[in-house]
Amino acid sequence: MENTKRMGRVTIPTQVGFDQETIELIARWGADAIRDCDGTKLPDSIKKEVEKVYTTYFLTRGDQEWAYSNQEDLQQFYLMSEYTLAEGNTLEIDLLKGFFEQQIRIDELHDAKEWWEVIDRTTEERVAKESWSYNNGKVTIENAIPWHEYTVSFLSYAIWDPTQMYNHITNDWGDKLHEMPYDARKPKTRDHMLKILKEWLNENEDCTVVRFTTFFYHFTLVFNDLAKEKFVDWFGYSASISPDALEAFQQERGYKLTPEDIVNKGYYNSPFCVPSKAYLDLLDFQQQFVCELAAKCVEMAHERGKEAMMFLGDNWIGTEPYGKHFEKIKLDAVVGSVGSGATLRMISDIPHVKYTEGRFLPYFFPDTFHEGGDPVKEARENWLCARRAIMRKPVDRIGYGGYLSLAAQFPDFVEYVEHVCNEFREIYENINGTKPYVAPFKVAVLNSWGKLRSWQTHMVAHALWYKQIYSYIGIIEALSGMAVDVEFISFDQIKEEGIPEGVGVIINAGDAGTAWSGGENWNDEKVITTIREWVYNGGGFIGVGEPSAYLKGGHFFQLADLLGVDKEVGFTLSTRKYNQTPIKDHFLLEDVTEPLDFGEGMKNIYAKPNATVLNIEKEDVGLAVNQYGKGRGIYISGLPYSAQNTRLLLRACYFAASKEALFNSWSTTNPYTECTYYPETKKMAVINNTYEEQITTVYFEGGNKQEITLEPMGIKWFNI
Amino acid sequence: MENTKRMGRVTIPTQVGFDQETIELIARWGADAIRDCDGTKLPDSIKKEVEKVYTTYFLTRGDQEWAYSNQEDLQQFYLMSEYTLAEGNTLEIDLLKGFFEQQIRIDELHDAKEWWEVIDRTTEERVAKESWSYNNGKVTIENAIPWHEYTVSFLSYAIWDPTQMYNHITNDWGDKLHEMPYDARKPKTRDHMLKILKEWLNENEDCTVVRFTTFFYHFTLVFNDLAKEKFVDWFGYSASISPDALEAFQQERGYKLTPEDIVNKGYYNSPFCVPSKAYLDLLDFQQQFVCELAAKCVEMAHERGKEAMMFLGDNWIGTEPYGKHFEKIKLDAVVGSVGSGATLRMISDIPHVKYTEGRFLPYFFPDTFHEGGDPVKEARENWLCARRAIMRKPVDRIGYGGYLSLAAQFPDFVEYVEHVCNEFREIYENINGTKPYVAPFKVAVLNSWGKLRSWQTHMVAHALWYKQIYSYIGIIEALSGMAVDVEFISFDQIKEEGIPEGVGVIINAGDAGTAWSGGENWNDEKVITTIREWVYNGGGFIGVGEPSAYLKGGHFFQLADLLGVDKEVGFTLSTRKYNQTPIKDHFLLEDVTEPLDFGEGMKNIYAKPNATVLNIEKEDVGLAVNQYGKGRGIYISGLPYSAQNTRLLLRACYFAASKEALFNSWSTTNPYTECTYYPETKKMAVINNTYEEQITTVYFEGGNKQEITLEPMGIKWFNI
Repeated sequence: MENTKRMGRVTIPTQVGFDQETIELIARWGADAIRDCDGTKLPDSIKKEVEKVYTTYFLTRGDQEWAYSNQEDLQQFYLMSEYTLAEGNTLEIDLLKGFFEQQIRIDELHDAKEWWEVIDRTTEERVAKESWSYNNGKVTIENAIPWHEYTVSFLSYAIWDPTQMYNHITNDWGDKLHEMPYDARKPKTRDHMLKILKEWLNENEDCTVVRFTTFFYHFTLVFNDLAKEKFVDWFGYSASISPDALEAFQQERGYKLTPEDIVNKGYYNSPFCVPSKAYLDLLDFQQQFVCELAAKCVEMAHERGKEAMMFLGDNWIGTEPYGKHFEKIKLDAVVGSVGSGATLRMISDIPHVKYTEGRFLPYFFPDTFHEGGDPVKEARENWLCARRAIMRKPVDRIGYGGYLSLAAQFPDFVEYVEHVCNEFREIYENINGTKPYVAPFKVAVLNSWGKLRSWQTHMVAHALWYKQIYSYIGIIEALSGMAVDVEFISFDQIKEEGIPEGVGVIINAGDAGTAWSGGENWNDEKVITTIREWVYNGGGFIGVGEPSAYLKGGHFFQLADLLGVDKEVGFTLSTRKYNQTPIKDHFLLEDVTEPLDFGEGMKNIYAKPNATVLNIEKEDVGLAVNQYGKGRGIYISGLPYSAQNTRLLLRACYFAASKEALFNSWSTTNPYTECTYYPETKKMAVINNTYEEQITTVYFEGGNKQEITLEPMGIKWFNI
Repeated sequence: MENTKRMGRVTIPTQVGFDQETIELIARWGADAIRDCDGTKLPDSIKKEVEKVYTTYFLTRGDQEWAYSNQEDLQQFYLMSEYTLAEGNTLEIDLLKGFFEQQIRIDELHDAKEWWEVIDRTTEERVAKESWSYNNGKVTIENAIPWHEYTVSFLSYAIWDPTQMYNHITNDWGDKLHEMPYDARKPKTRDHMLKILKEWLNENEDCTVVRFTTFFYHFTLVFNDLAKEKFVDWFGYSASISPDALEAFQQERGYKLTPEDIVNKGYYNSPFCVPSKAYLDLLDFQQQFVCELAAKCVEMAHERGKEAMMFLGDNWIGTEPYGKHFEKIKLDAVVGSVGSGATLRMISDIPHVKYTEGRFLPYFFPDTFHEGGDPVKEARENWLCARRAIMRKPVDRIGYGGYLSLAAQFPDFVEYVEHVCNEFREIYENINGTKPYVAPFKVAVLNSWGKLRSWQTHMVAHALWYKQIYSYIGIIEALSGMAVDVEFISFDQIKEEGIPEGVGVIINAGDAGTAWSGGENWNDEKVITTIREWVYNGGGFIGVGEPSAYLKGGHFFQLADLLGVDKEVGFTLSTRKYNQTPIKDHFLLEDVTEPLDFGEGMKNIYAKPNATVLNIEKEDVGLAVNQYGKGRGIYISGLPYSAQNTRLLLRACYFAASKEALFNSWSTTNPYTECTYYPETKKMAVINNTYEEQITTVYFEGGNKQEITLEPMGIKWFNI
């Protein structure tokens, strides 16, 4: 099915000593860019063969001589000690207990009494400064209340860069130097950082693209005393905090943050926590600093005629591509790792850059590329989930990482990558920068973060599976390749601006109390009345898991009336429930061929008398719809990603928006296939999202249809 | 295995026209008492054949002429209207929408503005009295806030007694008079009630036992507009409320209750709600009234030389046999329906009576006694679960209800009842009023109700199965026949008196937020520190489901440190969990032969590093133990009733109390059997709790043992 050979839009890694083979692969894959990796150098001979030469640059750990001789300028962060039980009136807390001493050094330079906090966690009260003292790694509390638990929030220095630490330990690098990250907040270090960047830019003439990896602060990654992961938060700002930052914050924002604003009960403001105003202010403040300083680095690259590309990961904290300061950086490009359709859209939708690039899996590393390994399998899975998102909004380039010499030993893999590169280019050219056909309404995902965390909801560590998230992430994954325009909106936005124009369906999904469901936002009558009025007048609301959950006024779901369901938390057990027999013949279920799969699902959901129940198992409603004035509410107990669930969600969106009649436009009957139409170019593609052949009827606009057969993973293009 | 024929301790129903057969059954079953039922009369000829003649007496609906001619004295209750959405500024609420108009009449006699409340449930604020008005069944709110929900709490009259209504509708009694319940609070009616009781006592010479069914107020049972159950709360005081009661309350207790104190968001203070102080005051106040007035009735019966027996059900509200006013009634006996071991103990443990009686199942009603029905099966199940509780603390009598003529048509059943009666008498005589051997520590069940609701935890409707309760009720059911002394204690008790002497193990079981888990009681540092200190010094704490759940200070379980587990509610997903591989060789698991069954179980429970995990499934810890100072915490995710779980709980108790070494005393190796030893009489019984033969080794004190075989459902007695 492949058309004529296309070239470009592909970046590959390479390494010294692999020159000839690289040239062959460049030709075969049509690569137009090469990149170095952590620990590899680019061979000079190759640089002429490509249009772009990416060179990785580490801003905060490139000069370890500087790091070691200016340790007062190392990056800092707050840590919370372990909870410690007072058995008597005196309590000693060993601050580093449970932490990895090679990663962390207690900050003994700044005044503990000013910067630290001791908290009685049984009462959540602060312990008076006079009642505790610090000495030699330990805090001693006098007048402790027996059988209360205490914690100390203390400042520390990062004495090992988390990424290098991870690689060092994982790859057993022995006595290789521990790289320490220095802090761009400290004026002396900031000046030095810019100075050596300038020198580097001058020295690296061959480099056409500076690949910043990344800017100034790493996401939170803390190890434990067994040198294993203790805490990881891909969104965590903890490692960007220092007295300098806090003082600057106070100066600019007019109030002082407390350690608890940052440590937050040991949750460290995980994105699952409904963000406090103080934390949102801090994020904004740090983003402003990071973006403005990053802009200087980018400007320097531009001055030397180089493009500036940012890696979306590792030291990305503060850049937040969907935040309001990102634009200032004036980046040429963002590159990020594609683990799914959602992460692809997270990259491809980034505004204010000239192009985006997806780093595809697998990495050319020995964990996959070894005897008996199956890199083709991984590559196929990766491509299948990414492709449907690409159909909606492509990244502009794709690329790979790791050791090219390893990949070259797997001929099947080399061939498959060739296929992917060609297919990607074909798609990209056919789309040609135009917008695909979408449903005649927008879908808004409502949570506490809104636009700032577009395509990033329910994530813990980047693209990893967690039992507690897959039933929600599935929604985002489904949406990433769905023929709808998606917006991410926040409760604050609803309060300030109402529901955006053009939105036809709101999705609220998450566990009770989390930022995704909304927690105390559902105690806000403005939020509730705005949504009720909007739905009553024709809007659609889809709740997944524990939507609008906040126990108040006799409801657990504050929008129980609208959703048609509520959760039994015990207080209304005396109220008899008459759960209806689920109906089987419904628009939502028309493509259902396998048992419905709600993932973790949700216990104790019961339907209100007016709701229409479409699924109930062991007394728990899994799926229900509810007419509410002229609008509709839909409840789904969970939605892990699958073809059937993607179709179910698409149908739910059309039904919620009362647009069922328009469903069969540019659509396929077989849920394992999807259709995308590009009105401006009058091209249409149908993709097969499975490893088997699929037959489907394709509906064009206006009721015309055609049956087609797609080979495994196939794609077919039509000129309309 | 049956010994010589014993007589007595058995009550049977009978009816006119069944005289001869009744005499035969009296002889065969060894009955010494007869009783009438709703709708049956006792034949005079039989009364001479027995020692006791029970006659049912209905205090509040016996004189319907009085009821119909004094309707201002009917019983009253508060109802909450349905939640009604304001679509504009004016909102009309139809008060009786969703209610059964044949059961309820809106109270138009008392001033609505004084006694009713209109509440904005979106803000939980009261609507000003000036803003609403009542007319002809409807409340109209002016200045309603659009898209807010409103409810009206209004007073009503009960115009149909719930029990008679239930029987009337179920048995299709057609145009038979609807009996209306009158209110003992109203002086005129109270006097009349006592007057006709006196007359009745004088007229009913043959009656030796007045079976009060019961006193003055029915538990809450409200029907819906389809004449089906809408709300049922076996513990509900709603139907005991009236302006008279509230005024008397204010007079005596010095403050005024609001309708919301009673209606409570439509939860009507279900026992699952953590009781407010106002509600506890109200209960105490009503109990005082009921018990003092009941005492007068009982005194009148005594004056006529009759015994006074109370039926534990229907109009039992305010008697609360484990409450502090019950003693005042000076009852001779309580009779109640035995649906399980727990309900048996609920009856047999009642203090301040001369004897207790269990009404066994099945009722002699056509629902079981019809062609194809299997009453023996029901009787066997009933006996099996009741017997093990009887071994611990017997009721003094057993009995049956319904139509004797129906039962007589089932010879197998007649034979089986004969067997049960004989076995019951044998057990009763062997126990001879002595206490069985128990573990060397008491087990305390901790919840918001404590002693007041002994053996009554987690109940919705009396002995009915609910998905949300069986995983907790199983604990109580297991305890009902277990060789431990059980106490029920409350959080208030812990705050005021600490943990009672002799308690070795505390069990806290329930869903988060409920009265059983404790809800906001876990925000009380006195509760937490008292328990922590006590366990740390050697106590045992068993948490089931969501014990000590209250989100605060970084924990969801406030005793997470002690239990060794916590629940992941999303905020600590970034904290890496290293769930241990469960160990299989542990004291708790020594009798486990079937897959562990935690019933509904609990999601997202993870173990702390120091805990020992005994079961984990799909990342959720089901069973874990944790050393805490000299004491121990144990977590179980749910415990439905089964032989294996009973044994697991018994082992958990011994382990929590650090008394494993004493486990093999008066015990059996086979979990389907149980052993009870009566030290004072030196008799020992081993029972088979299954329908199959069982072989078990019996451990006597001091390590002696013996293997025995028990026939299906068998019991063997030993003289030690």
